[in-house]
Amino acid sequence: MEDQSPKPIRCKAAVCRGPGEPLTIEEIVVDPPKAYEVRVKIICTSLCHTDITFWRTEFATAFPRILGHEAYGVVESVGEYVEGIAAGDAVVPTFMGQCDTCLGCASEHNNLCTTVPFIFGPWMRRDGTTRFWDAQGNPLHDLVSVSSFSEYTVVDVTQAVKIDPAVPPKIACLLGCGASTGVGAAWKVAKVEPGSSVAIFGLGSVGLAVAQGAKMCGASMIIGVDMNPAKEEVGKSFGVTHFINPSQLGNSSVTEEIAKLTGGGADYSFECIGVSSVMTDAFTSTKPGKGKTVILGVEKHNGPVSLPSLDLLSGKCVMGCYFGGLKPKTDVPILAQKCMNKELELDGLVTHEVGLQEINKAFDLLLQGKSLRCIIWMDK
Amino acid sequence: MEDQSPKPIRCKAAVCRGPGEPLTIEEIVVDPPKAYEVRVKIICTSLCHTDITFWRTEFATAFPRILGHEAYGVVESVGEYVEGIAAGDAVVPTFMGQCDTCLGCASEHNNLCTTVPFIFGPWMRRDGTTRFWDAQGNPLHDLVSVSSFSEYTVVDVTQAVKIDPAVPPKIACLLGCGASTGVGAAWKVAKVEPGSSVAIFGLGSVGLAVAQGAKMCGASMIIGVDMNPAKEEVGKSFGVTHFINPSQLGNSSVTEEIAKLTGGGADYSFECIGVSSVMTDAFTSTKPGKGKTVILGVEKHNGPVSLPSLDLLSGKCVMGCYFGGLKPKTDVPILAQKCMNKELELDGLVTHEVGLQEINKAFDLLLQGKSLRCIIWMDK
Repeated sequence: MEDQSPKPIRCKAAVCRGPGEPLTIEEIVVDPPKAYEVRVKIICTSLCHTDITFWRTEFATAFPRILGHEAYGVVESVGEYVEGIAAGDAVVPTFMGQCDTCLGCASEHNNLCTTVPFIFGPWMRRDGTTRFWDAQGNPLHDLVSVSSFSEYTVVDVTQAVKIDPAVPPKIACLLGCGASTGVGAAWKVAKVEPGSSVAIFGLGSVGLAVAQGAKMCGASMIIGVDMNPAKEEVGKSFGVTHFINPSQLGNSSVTEEIAKLTGGGADYSFECIGVSSVMTDAFTSTKPGKGKTVILGVEKHNGPVSLPSLDLLSGKCVMGCYFGGLKPKTDVPILAQKCMNKELELDGLVTHEVGLQEINKAFDLLLQGKSLRCIIWMDK
Repeated sequence: MEDQSPKPIRCKAAVCRGPGEPLTIEEIVVDPPKAYEVRVKIICTSLCHTDITFWRTEFATAFPRILGHEAYGVVESVGEYVEGIAAGDAVVPTFMGQCDTCLGCASEHNNLCTTVPFIFGPWMRRDGTTRFWDAQGNPLHDLVSVSSFSEYTVVDVTQAVKIDPAVPPKIACLLGCGASTGVGAAWKVAKVEPGSSVAIFGLGSVGLAVAQGAKMCGASMIIGVDMNPAKEEVGKSFGVTHFINPSQLGNSSVTEEIAKLTGGGADYSFECIGVSSVMTDAFTSTKPGKGKTVILGVEKHNGPVSLPSLDLLSGKCVMGCYFGGLKPKTDVPILAQKCMNKELELDGLVTHEVGLQEINKAFDLLLQGKSLRCIIWMDK
């Protein structure tokens, strides 16, 4: 009888051999999925700032590495004990897992699964080994156990979100990280209320997704804050109603301008950049008594956030989140549905599209601030 | 026809003539209530740390001053346009107001009334004048427009909470500030859930009231943190289930000890001291993914709170509040009822009782850490 179990697959992947080096397209071997794992044929993936952060990182131990964590694909095969997901299923791999049984998953206030806890990598979470090997048989590290810059990848079953195959691949891909993070921050973390005012610091993909999330929740004033004047126009297409360029305020501060626009401060503010001083600005720009600040950016120097304590005492709140506070398997399909019925319009985030061979162009575009999301198609 | 309008009243008050000086019992004149004001005969009052803060303050412009802001009394007369409250009504004056019509009062997330905004003083909020005069006819400043260290005081109608006269005067008095702040922080701000774990930094009156609030909400583990070993015993009588003395931990930290007790971190933590580094400890002691930290203490040097940003990103939340996030007229009567039916047991906060003539003894007891709350009776 023929052995039906999955075999290693030879395929192409974009490998990062060292910090800041252009990725090289190489033939690699992807192991079969082990227990509780699924192997996914990636249809498309996109480049997020977190990929850039880990591409630049100086930790020599993390290289060679396969980056990428925002993607859409189809399950090719599944390992032992995998339930509820099968070959042929459309999936969005996510860096956060959801087992649905641990205390974290059981809590409505928590999206940190403790069965297979989130780590940045560089190995598979359950057994600390790799599924990727280069042509010389050397192991390749992963990124957040997703590593989607490859024609095939292996992810833990807790990290494979089954999705309606009718969802357009590009939209499904965007929901794998940045767009979900932004929309979720407004929807699930801040719980933006109808008629409220929102300030968004940084109109990159995440900030623009916050704008869409705030609009979806019924916010009546959405203030975009960005140093790049070109963001005024793009912001408006995502629902931003007012724009502030901090470099053009003269003697006034962002906090003062937002107080003027909102009658004392925004109901909600979102920091989508990752700069400690901007986090403080976002906080001071909220309304005394009730203002909520949501921190989405990873502080570039891992610095602390400093908050004026008396301002906090007035009744303000500061919150942070990974993945917009979403539980991936529960919430990504809901967001996909909202995209399908146009409650959410995220298509504008896709500014460029390339094939895997041109992946370094996606890096250049993002580094030069020319792109929001560049979709990388595997079959092009 | 005889003029029925209220006249000035001569009565006794404890006057603070200069920073840190013993209060002097003087005969003063209390003006009749103006429009939207009520004059209250104080039955009893108690001493809170905020009185100490303002007693010590070096701002010469704030003296001479009548301190006191935690009290119970009976309305003696009312000014023009006062509705819903009349002579003979039992009231708790509160430093926070509630008009019930402004945007702040209308919002369920906000307890800052904007009609008569909260200020520390030293004058009446609507017209910036005083109702107190010394024997020489010189004006006396107020504290938070309550100034309860006087046989009579005048407060804005938004600051007079009508209360069931069946509530024992001492309980009503405690609900005027500290006890409400602590209970409210657990009940209304953190919204402590049944079965959860709570860490309380500082077991003074406010911290002990947090313990009662957490117990009322069904917390199953209530960890008290205090440098004073005597607080272990008193804490238990308020519902504290575990006690940590940070000075007796050797190489371990409070955060590590709380992580051990709770399996990773407390669901909620409360800072009731007002020290920036303790605020950071309270934050790091909460559970990744969902921990809520509530800041109640006024930072002693008005310093900022510093929070590790990556820790915040995991899904944690930091909130501050005045008056436990309570709307005084809505919530103080509810808490009074909970005291009456023993859902809340605050009696233990009263460790001493004196007459007005002995008010400086109340200061000594609090300064020496010997008292929680010392009730000052006006008729003794």
